[in-house]
Amino acid sequence: MIRIGIVGCTGRLAKQIIDLIQNDDKLVLLKAITRPNSEYINANVSDYTEYKKSLVFVENDVMNCKECDVIIDATKRDVFINQNYEKYLILKKPLIIATTGFNDEDLERISLLGMYAPVIHSANFSVELHYLIKAIKTYVSVQRPLDITIIEKHHKAKIDSPSGTALMIKKELLNANADLSVNILSVRAGGIVGEHSVLIANPDGEEIEFTHRATNRSIFAKGIIKLSYEILNTDNGVFEMQYLL
Amino acid sequence: MIRIGIVGCTGRLAKQIIDLIQNDDKLVLLKAITRPNSEYINANVSDYTEYKKSLVFVENDVMNCKECDVIIDATKRDVFINQNYEKYLILKKPLIIATTGFNDEDLERISLLGMYAPVIHSANFSVELHYLIKAIKTYVSVQRPLDITIIEKHHKAKIDSPSGTALMIKKELLNANADLSVNILSVRAGGIVGEHSVLIANPDGEEIEFTHRATNRSIFAKGIIKLSYEILNTDNGVFEMQYLL
Amino acid sequence: MIRIGIVGCTGRLAKQIIDLIQNDDKLVLLKAITRPNSEYINANVSDYTEYKKSLVFVENDVMNCKECDVIIDATKRDVFINQNYEKYLILKKPLIIATTGFNDEDLERISLLGMYAPVIHSANFSVELHYLIKAIKTYVSVQRPLDITIIEKHHKAKIDSPSGTALMIKKELLNANADLSVNILSVRAGGIVGEHSVLIANPDGEEIEFTHRATNRSIFAKGIIKLSYEILNTDNGVFEMQYLL
Amino acid sequence: MIRIGIVGCTGRLAKQIIDLIQNDDKLVLLKAITRPNSEYINANVSDYTEYKKSLVFVENDVMNCKECDVIIDATKRDVFINQNYEKYLILKKPLIIATTGFNDEDLERISLLGMYAPVIHSANFSVELHYLIKAIKTYVSVQRPLDITIIEKHHKAKIDSPSGTALMIKKELLNANADLSVNILSVRAGGIVGEHSVLIANPDGEEIEFTHRATNRSIFAKGIIKLSYEILNTDNGVFEMQYLL
Repeated sequence: MIRIGIVGCTGRLAKQIIDLIQNDDKLVLLKAITRPNSEYINANVSDYTEYKKSLVFVENDVMNCKECDVIIDATKRDVFINQNYEKYLILKKPLIIATTGFNDEDLERISLLGMYAPVIHSANFSVELHYLIKAIKTYVSVQRPLDITIIEKHHKAKIDSPSGTALMIKKELLNANADLSVNILSVRAGGIVGEHSVLIANPDGEEIEFTHRATNRSIFAKGIIKLSYEILNTDNGVFEMQYLL
Repeated sequence: MIRIGIVGCTGRLAKQIIDLIQNDDKLVLLKAITRPNSEYINANVSDYTEYKKSLVFVENDVMNCKECDVIIDATKRDVFINQNYEKYLILKKPLIIATTGFNDEDLERISLLGMYAPVIHSANFSVELHYLIKAIKTYVSVQRPLDITIIEKHHKAKIDSPSGTALMIKKELLNANADLSVNILSVRAGGIVGEHSVLIANPDGEEIEFTHRATNRSIFAKGIIKLSYEILNTDNGVFEMQYLL
Repeated sequence: MIRIGIVGCTGRLAKQIIDLIQNDDKLVLLKAITRPNSEYINANVSDYTEYKKSLVFVENDVMNCKECDVIIDATKRDVFINQNYEKYLILKKPLIIATTGFNDEDLERISLLGMYAPVIHSANFSVELHYLIKAIKTYVSVQRPLDITIIEKHHKAKIDSPSGTALMIKKELLNANADLSVNILSVRAGGIVGEHSVLIANPDGEEIEFTHRATNRSIFAKGIIKLSYEILNTDNGVFEMQYLL
Repeated sequence: MIRIGIVGCTGRLAKQIIDLIQNDDKLVLLKAITRPNSEYINANVSDYTEYKKSLVFVENDVMNCKECDVIIDATKRDVFINQNYEKYLILKKPLIIATTGFNDEDLERISLLGMYAPVIHSANFSVELHYLIKAIKTYVSVQRPLDITIIEKHHKAKIDSPSGTALMIKKELLNANADLSVNILSVRAGGIVGEHSVLIANPDGEEIEFTHRATNRSIFAKGIIKLSYEILNTDNGVFEMQYLL
């Protein structure tokens, strides 16, 4: 059994992850951590999730994850950097970072974590999206004139634009072929869950389109569960999700 | 027989129009006009088009269109405003303006032409596109929260962005419902002939999409031919194409 | 206040409708009816929905809806025809039929109900879908050569193919222009909630596409709520939803 | 210089290929072959193409291609099998078969040609399409529940349905993962040049789509030109185009 510690254990994504651990024979929830002043402190995880497997009570210190095989951090950027980061440096545990909004300096720090343990950090934990990106990378890896536009569509309340996922796709495409020029266009409208489309056109009038559309958010928790196995077979370093698939 | 005068008679669109007049029993080409210093002056139209019906020789003065029932101007903005405009004021003929790039002052002037004759002016002469815009206008005319994004895609060499067509669609949607907010996104890539998509999303997670895709440019000449009949049944004024369909 | 009776009150759609009545100042739930042998008989509606407004207990006889202003039937075809139909004939109440799978003989019977009260019957209660169909009808109503294909996509578990909605769209397009030929293609895959696309192409290489995509099912309950007002201003007859919008 | 022989030299595709050889420094047209009773026999290729490089006169016997490095057959199935096949058996030359409509027995015969020379045979010679298929194959090669639908759209005059290209895509996807189930849907409408879309959905509500759209037919001739170089570095055997890219 892989023993999981989840940090930021009361958010929507964390709860979905805990629900999935409940139904997974190879995983067990060992620690659930939240911020010190949370009303959830000392609550039984069973009280606010579907998790019935054992008695885990919400705690407030990341250092309590010493016995965990894998730690999943689903907090926010400030919490991660200011409260948790140094503890992860000490713990040296396989770490899945499901937190976004890092700046370049933050990423430098995260790369330091990778020196002591495998770390996965992604803007998007959909397994299928990463398989798709891998496929697009094979497509663009041969040199030829290709104009690339990423169109991403999300609900109106989404603040960041372009999406972290679109930026990640752009970065991965440039990893595959540094000569590409890649534009990103963002649509913010209604209640769109999330769509990313990579449109490619060539001078001969051909258009090629790769599209990923999500209609519910459970796929991200499922991806993190899958990574919980994979990370244990991974070398030290900070990895984008697709390199473990 | 409707007698057509075409001004700017040596361009791609003009040639397509002349080819179509050849096959149309109700239309005849009476005058073909180009700029004074053109190498085509005095050439027989048959020499550079598929037109075989009669002997029309390229001339250089718009005023020679006095006997035409309909004039089609397919020149460029500067030619239209600086060389042709005042002659159209004098001629007071039904006029189809297949020229783009006008500024607000130009449009003021064009509206003056509409006081003496019917004038059609559009950024796009596809009949189907205008039927589509009319359909979208019925769709958005009921008040409700709708986020609207127009995505237009054209070949890399297209200079103006957003396309005149996208701006025209936006204007027409606001004509139908002044409360809408409409964003336009532009893709310039490869050899895309032309695609306009109106994406609408609402807070309930519904997405509605209206798309027009052109794969060859003959549709614009065909639309102008159709307008050549319709304009004769039209009151004075400057009209967007769809108001004659 | 419009007094609603809901028949088939324990199904997913019925529960969503009841939840929405809770938040609607102009509607009140008066009767909740299910089949005689249901375990829900005598249950308080508050026990299994978000409805807190008043004490409505589940009953088993449609005839108890005598005082309702509008009846919503969300049962199944056999229940509707064999158990409820004759009671609706007696009650002569405005009726919204959110039941599918009727055969031609059933539809004959339903048309009889329309002689005594307004009846709305549709394969799809999304307001936006019906606005879209109205827009497409304006688009196809002018005679010209148009090849029309409806592509509908639904989750793998959906049994009927083509979808009732696709058949309804086809029927409405033929209402607008009897000369059209309309093909329907069905995709059954994964967990797709529902997408209907009307693709139109002409000989000049233009493609026009109208797409409606649903990502959650709450839109159907919302449409029925909207019809609950509209039906009271409607003449007797059996109507497709869009004729009330 | 690679010496090309083109068989079926008066068709649309053949003429496009000849035009491209004109502009290619590494290729030269050596032989142009058509059927014995053609009016083109003895015509100079320059008379009906853009080819100006040398004096090639249309001949009527495939055996005259003895000195060619690569032969391109752009005839029809009956001509290929009944008139040309045995000559190719004797010539043992690298052969690109741009002919469709073969039955299983024909394909057996073609596989015999592959024993003596490299042979490329494809339903579609777009380079980008084959790159795309290769990308889709990487996407589907991992075992997981995926429902796959190929939607292909072509102009109304296209007789075969599904398209040979759609069948080829299906075959290649099954080569990558034999457990897939793949449906094909065909749209025949208007003047659509050609679109192939591979739609994949999973039970978690994700949809992934790969689309290739062609807007002009020159891409097929360009693909054959590219293969004319590649085939010379290829082992004996019959290959689908993508295995040489």
